[in-house]
Amino acid sequence: MDNIPDNFLWSGVHSGLKGGKTPDLGLVYSSYPSTVAGVFTRNNLPAAPVIEARRRLAEKKQFHGLIVNSGVANAANGEAGLADNLELMKSAANYLNIDSAQMLSASTGYIGRSLPLGKLKDHLPKAVDDLQQSPDEFSRAILTTDTCAKVCRKNIKDIDATMLGIAKGSGMINPHMATMLAFIFLDYPVESSWWQDKLSTVCGDSFNEITIDGETSTNDTVLAWAAELPERQSIDSSHPAASSVNNALTEICENLAYEIVCDGEGATCTVEVRVQQAKSEEAARRIAEEIAGSPLVRTAFYGRDPNWGRIYSAIGAAGVPLKPEKLEIRMNDTVVYRAQQPVRGQSDLREKLETEDHHTVTVKLGQGRESVRRITCDLSEDYVRINSNYG
Amino acid sequence: MDNIPDNFLWSGVHSGLKGGKTPDLGLVYSSYPSTVAGVFTRNNLPAAPVIEARRRLAEKKQFHGLIVNSGVANAANGEAGLADNLELMKSAANYLNIDSAQMLSASTGYIGRSLPLGKLKDHLPKAVDDLQQSPDEFSRAILTTDTCAKVCRKNIKDIDATMLGIAKGSGMINPHMATMLAFIFLDYPVESSWWQDKLSTVCGDSFNEITIDGETSTNDTVLAWAAELPERQSIDSSHPAASSVNNALTEICENLAYEIVCDGEGATCTVEVRVQQAKSEEAARRIAEEIAGSPLVRTAFYGRDPNWGRIYSAIGAAGVPLKPEKLEIRMNDTVVYRAQQPVRGQSDLREKLETEDHHTVTVKLGQGRESVRRITCDLSEDYVRINSNYG
Repeated sequence: MDNIPDNFLWSGVHSGLKGGKTPDLGLVYSSYPSTVAGVFTRNNLPAAPVIEARRRLAEKKQFHGLIVNSGVANAANGEAGLADNLELMKSAANYLNIDSAQMLSASTGYIGRSLPLGKLKDHLPKAVDDLQQSPDEFSRAILTTDTCAKVCRKNIKDIDATMLGIAKGSGMINPHMATMLAFIFLDYPVESSWWQDKLSTVCGDSFNEITIDGETSTNDTVLAWAAELPERQSIDSSHPAASSVNNALTEICENLAYEIVCDGEGATCTVEVRVQQAKSEEAARRIAEEIAGSPLVRTAFYGRDPNWGRIYSAIGAAGVPLKPEKLEIRMNDTVVYRAQQPVRGQSDLREKLETEDHHTVTVKLGQGRESVRRITCDLSEDYVRINSNYG
Repeated sequence: MDNIPDNFLWSGVHSGLKGGKTPDLGLVYSSYPSTVAGVFTRNNLPAAPVIEARRRLAEKKQFHGLIVNSGVANAANGEAGLADNLELMKSAANYLNIDSAQMLSASTGYIGRSLPLGKLKDHLPKAVDDLQQSPDEFSRAILTTDTCAKVCRKNIKDIDATMLGIAKGSGMINPHMATMLAFIFLDYPVESSWWQDKLSTVCGDSFNEITIDGETSTNDTVLAWAAELPERQSIDSSHPAASSVNNALTEICENLAYEIVCDGEGATCTVEVRVQQAKSEEAARRIAEEIAGSPLVRTAFYGRDPNWGRIYSAIGAAGVPLKPEKLEIRMNDTVVYRAQQPVRGQSDLREKLETEDHHTVTVKLGQGRESVRRITCDLSEDYVRINSNYG
C-alpha cells in the first residue's frame, strides 16, 4: 500500500476496558527502530504514561513499540499507576520480543481508576498476532467519546516516503493539549533534534490552536515516529527534503486538529476565531481564548444566532486594554460592529449561519500588528448529555 | 411596614422591552437624598449606564432617583448609547421633579440593541404614579432570564433601621461582577467613604465569589443607597452601630449572591469550591476558579456523578505548581483522593449527591495557609437551551 508508511505495523483489540466489542487496546511495532519526538500536556498533574514517556524521551530517542489504551487514563494513581504502566510496557515488549526500554505508552479515559492490568495482559497476544500494515483498528482503539477515527495521510514524493497521522480528541480539548492523543509515523530517518524542533513548532499552530471546552487534561500526548530505514540520509535542516517533510507534518497536524474540533463532544459546527491588529501576541491570545472559551458565544453558534453582543462582551472581559473606537467585529466576513456602532441589516449573515457549518469570528483591534487564531466548536445540549453520563 | 426601609419608594412597569406583560422598567425614589456607593464590572467595554454612573459617583455621592431597564443592555452603542442613557435619566428626573444630576441608572439585557427611548419615556408617568413602599414590582422589573425575584431584608435593631437588598443574575455570572445588578437600601445616613469601603470589601466576599459560566458582562452594577434621614449621626467606623450595619450588608450581599447562583441559568444544584492550604491567595484563586469554571466538573454535578477525576485534572490545569503527595480532595466532606491514591468505596457519596442540592468540593494543597472559596452551579442541558434561543 503506497499510502501507508513502510516499517510500521498496527493493531487494535477489545480487552474489556470499554463497553461492547469496541477495541480499547492499541499496539504499534516499528520494525526498524524509530526516532521519536514528543509533545505533552502542560497539566501539573500528568498521568503515569506521560511522566514515563517524558522521562524516556529525555534519555534516548529511538524506540520500537507503542502501547495505547483507552477507557482508563491511569492518572491520579500515584506510584501504583507508574508501576502498572511499566508492567504493561514490559509485558508488551515481552510478546514483541524487544527490550522493555524500547517501548512508549499512552492512556486516555477515566481519571482515578486503576489500569485493569489483567485484562490488558490477557489480550496482548492477540494484539501482537493482529499486527498488520493497516492503522484502522489501532485508530479505533484509541478513541473515547469520539464519534469517528481521525486518520490523515500524505505522500512526500521527493523522498518517496509516506507520513501518516492518527489522533483522538473529543472532550477536554484546549490549547496546550487536552485529552488528545496524536501519533505520526514517517518511513524515513530523521535527525532527532530537528524532528523534535519541528514537532514542537507545528503543535503550536495546530493542536495548540484548538479548544473545545477549555479543559487541559492529564494525558495529552503527541508522538512523532520516523523510521530509521537504512541507506537513507537522515533529514535535518540542511536536507533537500526538509521543507517537504515539515510541510507534510504541518498539514497532517492541522488536519487532525481540525478533525478533532469537528468531532468535539456534541459539536454541530466549528468556529474559527481570529484576533488581528493586537499590540502583542499575548493580548491577541487572551482575547481569542476568551471568545473561543465563552459558553455564551458557543451556545449562540449552536442556535445559529448572530448574537455578536456576546463576542463584544467577551472581548471586553479578556482583561486587555482596548480602543473601542478602533474595534471591528465580523461574523462570517460580515461586519457586525464598527466605529462604536452595530452595523444593522445583515439578513445574509443569518442565512450563512444557518446553511454553513464552519463559521468565523474576526476581531480587529486597531492597536498593532499581532494576530492569533483559535478554533472551537459550538456548545450543544449533547455536550452536556455526554458529560453528565460519562463513566 | 417595618421590614421595608423608610424613605424609599419603588415601582416596576411594562414598557414593551420584554415580551408578555412582564415589568421591564424599574424606578426608585429616595425622598431624602441617599449617599450612594457603587461597584461595577471590570469588563473593558462597559455599557453606557456603567460609564455614566462611574462618572457621577466620582463627582458626588448623593442621589435622589434610580432608573433601571431590563431587556436591552445599552452596551456597544457608542455615543448614541451614552446620549440615550442621559435622555432617559433626564426624562425620569423631570417626572420625579428632581434635578437630572440626582439620577443614576442601570440596564441589563441584549447587547448592541438601541435603547427604545420612546417606549420607555411613554411609560415613565405610570412608573412615577406607581411608586410605593414595596419593592415587589421593581424587583421583577430588573429580571432577564432569572426565574424568580431576589430580595433580602435585615433589621438593624440598635439603630432601628432596615436594610433591603434586591438583585438579578442568571447568566454571564463570574467573579468581578457579571450581568448582575444589585441594589441595597438603608434608611440611615452614612459617611460616604466608609460606606464605599464596606461595599467594596463585602462584594469581594459575596458577588465576586460566585461564578455561573465564566462570563463577565458589560453591565454589572451594585449600588448601595443610605438615606440621609435627619437627626441621626452618620455611620462611620467610629459609630457604635458600624459593625451591625457592616454585618447586615455582608449578610444581605452573601444571601443575594447565593440566590443568584441557585437561580443560575438551568441550574439544578449549587457547588461550593473551597481551596485550602495554598501558598498564596492567587494560587488558591486560580485553582478554585479552574474547578468552578470547568464545564466537565459542572456537567458531572448535573449528572450527580462522583467523578472527582475531573476536579483532579482541573487542579493540575490551573498552572499552579503542586505537591501531588500532599494533595487531598473531598466531595461533600467525603475524602475521594489522598496520598496519591483514590479513596474507594464511597457509596454514601453517591447518595449525598443524589439527595442534596448543595454540594462542596474541598481541595487541600498542603503548601501553605491561604484559602479561597467560589460558588457555582451545575451545567445542564437547560443552560444550553436558554442560551441558544436568547433574544
